[in-house]
Order: sequence, then C-alpha cells, then structure tokens
Amino acid sequence: MAQHIHFNASIDGVAYGVLDDLVGYAVRRAQLSIYEDFGATMGAEEITPQRFSSLVIVENNPGISQTRLAEVMGIARSGVVAIIDDFENKGLIERQASGDRRSYSLLLTKAGARQLKRYKQAVKEHDERISAALSQAEKEQLLALLRKLCAPES
Amino acid sequence: MAQHIHFNASIDGVAYGVLDDLVGYAVRRAQLSIYEDFGATMGAEEITPQRFSSLVIVENNPGISQTRLAEVMGIARSGVVAIIDDFENKGLIERQASGDRRSYSLLLTKAGARQLKRYKQAVKEHDERISAALSQAEKEQLLALLRKLCAPES
Repeated sequence: MAQHIHFNASIDGVAYGVLDDLVGYAVRRAQLSIYEDFGATMGAEEITPQRFSSLVIVENNPGISQTRLAEVMGIARSGVVAIIDDFENKGLIERQASGDRRSYSLLLTKAGARQLKRYKQAVKEHDERISAALSQAEKEQLLALLRKLCAPES
Repeated sequence: MAQHIHFNASIDGVAYGVLDDLVGYAVRRAQLSIYEDFGATMGAEEITPQRFSSLVIVENNPGISQTRLAEVMGIARSGVVAIIDDFENKGLIERQASGDRRSYSLLLTKAGARQLKRYKQAVKEHDERISAALSQAEKEQLLALLRKLCAPES
C-alpha cells in the first residue's frame, strides 16, 4: 500500500504549479492511485474495474443487450463484445438470443453470480481502504460532488 | 459535449447496484468523462493530460531528472523517457547533461514555454467547463476530499 498512498500525496520539494488547482488533475491522480490499489487487491483474480462493473451491470439488469451495456460503460461495443466473450468462455455470463438477430440478452450464470459475490466482497474492502481517511459524511459529499462534474451548469 | 455529459450521468432505467456506493467507481466515471472532454478540447494539439502534466512539472522544477519526473508522475521511467524524447524532437524540452552520467536535467526551451502557455489556457478553460456546475467552495471541497483518498487513516 505504501507506494499507492505515496502517489496520491504531493511529493516534498516538488512544485506542481497550475496542476494543484485543476480538478481534472486531482481526479486523475486519485484515479491512478485507486486503480493501483484495485490491481494490488484483485491481481490474482484477473479482474479490472471495467470487468467488475460489467458483471455488476449485467447482474442488476438481466437481459441487457451488449449495445446497451457498452452505452452504460461508456466504451465501444467491440470492447464489450471482447469482455463478454471472455466471461462466456469462463462460464460466468451467458448470451441468449433475443428477437433481434444481431442482439443478445446477457445473463449471469450461477457460477457468475457466485464469482461476482466474491468479487464484490473484495472490491468493497478495497473501496473502504482507499476512502478510510474520509468520514461517512465526507464520502457522501465526495460522491455527490463527483456526480456534478461534467454536468450542465445549474 | 452532450456525449460526455451523458456519460458521467446515470442512464435512465439502468440499475447500477453496488457501483452507486463505490467511491472508486465514481472517481473512475468522472475521470473517463473528464478525459473525453480533454481530448475533445485539445485533440488537434496532440497533448494528453499526462504530457501536459509533465511539461508543467518541468517548468516548475527546472533541472528535474527523468527519474524524479517519473516518480512525480507515478509512471515508469521508460514512459517518461519516451515522452521527453518526443518533446525534445519538437524542440519543447532540452536535456542537459548533469554530474551523474546516466542522469539528465530537464528544462523547457523558450518554444516549450510559449507552447505550454497556450496549453495552460486551453486546459484551464476545459477544467472550468467540466466543473462549471460546482461553486468555488464546492470545487475546493472536492479537491480536499480527493487528496484524502488513498491516504492513511487519520
């Protein structure tokens, strides 16, 4: 953990100039730091934040199409197809034909649901660790503020 | 902008499950959204958030070594060397030999300083746009909360 903690902190004796005032830089720096901790936590599990998110979305939206999942994830449809191919090979997700020939409905298999339950536990622990310095109120404040980013001016 | 705005917002009718409660997911989602807006703003300039940061760090820490810059950026030294090679080719940064044979001191050239001035203006406008829905107080709150992430428990 020491290395990840280090990265999100300023390094003594280094001047960050305008970076210190940029919201975008602060978000990016936090993101890199969180990503490293996620990797360190889940490394052996071959799961990334993106892959984890896709399993959670499929679990909570059974029958969702690949196109819709790509939209939710904010990535290209081809990226989702590759992820689903892999999960299908591992027996975690199944594609069911839907009315539209080009479209599949996605469902977690029983093995997928069991695996995701384990992932969720590990990800929750990771998330609590990265936000351990925040009170519950600060955590909620942070979530609310992050959701206002890139939102139209109110 | 519409697409980027869309991505950081929840999509109607989609259930996000545990993702809605994870700090890591909120940061990642904001980051993707900001990154897209950065790309849309700076696209023609061939500059990324990472490359922009490296120019700012060199400007504010004249004579910094590549090793130290890599440490500040949280990336591999080889990544920094590739970035600096490119900036050197473009005449924006110069490497000066320092005492240690394997080490170079990095400096912005005059052209680099002029170019960075333009980048900074564009990045500030981008940053103001992505955080347009936040008041100044909320912006400072967000920066303070982000800096507490991955920090040791207080």
